Amino acid sequence: MFIGCQFSLYPMTSDFVPVILGAIKSLEGRTDLRKSSDDLSTFLLGPPEVLFRALEDVFVDAAASGVHVVMNATFSRGCPGEPDEPCCYPQQKSPSVTAAEWDGKVRGVDVSAHFALLPLGDTGYMNHIVSEIDEAKKAGVYAAPKHFCSKLAGDAHRVFSYLENAFDRGGVKTAHTVMTVTLSANSPSNAAK
Amino acid sequence: MFIGCQFSLYPMTSDFVPVILGAIKSLEGRTDLRKSSDDLSTFLLGPPEVLFRALEDVFVDAAASGVHVVMNATFSRGCPGEPDEPCCYPQQKSPSVTAAEWDGKVRGVDVSAHFALLPLGDTGYMNHIVSEIDEAKKAGVYAAPKHFCSKLAGDAHRVFSYLENAFDRGGVKTAHTVMTVTLSANSPSNAAK
Repeated sequence: MFIGCQFSLYPMTSDFVPVILGAIKSLEGRTDLRKSSDDLSTFLLGPPEVLFRALEDVFVDAAASGVHVVMNATFSRGCPGEPDEPCCYPQQKSPSVTAAEWDGKVRGVDVSAHFALLPLGDTGYMNHIVSEIDEAKKAGVYAAPKHFCSKLAGDAHRVFSYLENAFDRGGVKTAHTVMTVTLSANSPSNAAK
Repeated sequence: MFIGCQFSLYPMTSDFVPVILGAIKSLEGRTDLRKSSDDLSTFLLGPPEVLFRALEDVFVDAAASGVHVVMNATFSRGCPGEPDEPCCYPQQKSPSVTAAEWDGKVRGVDVSAHFALLPLGDTGYMNHIVSEIDEAKKAGVYAAPKHFCSKLAGDAHRVFSYLENAFDRGGVKTAHTVMTVTLSANSPSNAAK
């Protein structure tokens, strides 16, 4: 199994470099994730329960700067072109996160996001996508339909935990699952509402 | 046929709003594209040869600001959950762009990009993806392999034209084709090289 993501942070400030470097500092020295970066994105390899928590921390840290910040991430599991990596196997099954579990876990960062589940090589893929939209509604993070994706909204922890569960469910149904996510905080578009 | 994209611009400057609004101004009043926006992205609906040229203009305009700017775009054609839209049918077949055609058409904006072709509901999808990597090499825009995507580099017009051709080829092979693209200009990471 090969599980990982390519992610980028876009802080909309002239002083964007320290916001990015400060936010990804928490990834340094970790032995439970492998990483590499270029001018476009950072690649992380590891089990999903570690991957999503690490990205949540990175995003919340960047959002704490107060500037409008966007994270773009593409997750993939089971790509047949990638090698088997024992480090990617979940250490323990991520439990489904229930509404009650959110108490006391909010990060205090409101997130607007869109995401798309893209099950590959699976002729039943549309059913999986529709089913995942229902799961977003049940999880209380569904905001609106969009073309080619669904819009989510909520506290950062709630949204990231939903995304982790969606990715887990996708992997159970389809061997090669891709998920694209865009998360935004501190947008002046929302402040104007 | 339903063909369109969701795209976002991320100018890494504290004065990001005028860069975005200035760049998308060229989309106003057009009758060959339908559009709608929210706090996360702008949706464009229309035939591919119009869509890609319009996005190239938007990106080049934003890059002309001189600030580090990123465009993120997800293209889709043939989603079975979307209605048939006659306005999306190509007015004329986009010709394959040959190397000779680039002479005199460069935009003077160097782009670093990654893209992924995601043919859905097609069990032969991996062959289509591998074939498209070969096409990127032939078009002279392939830069490097990345996990879950391919890295491209070149003048903005050359990269956008390759992407248009890749999307056209994808649509010929697979009824429902998604393509994700991230383009970057003026990155300080590249200036440091």
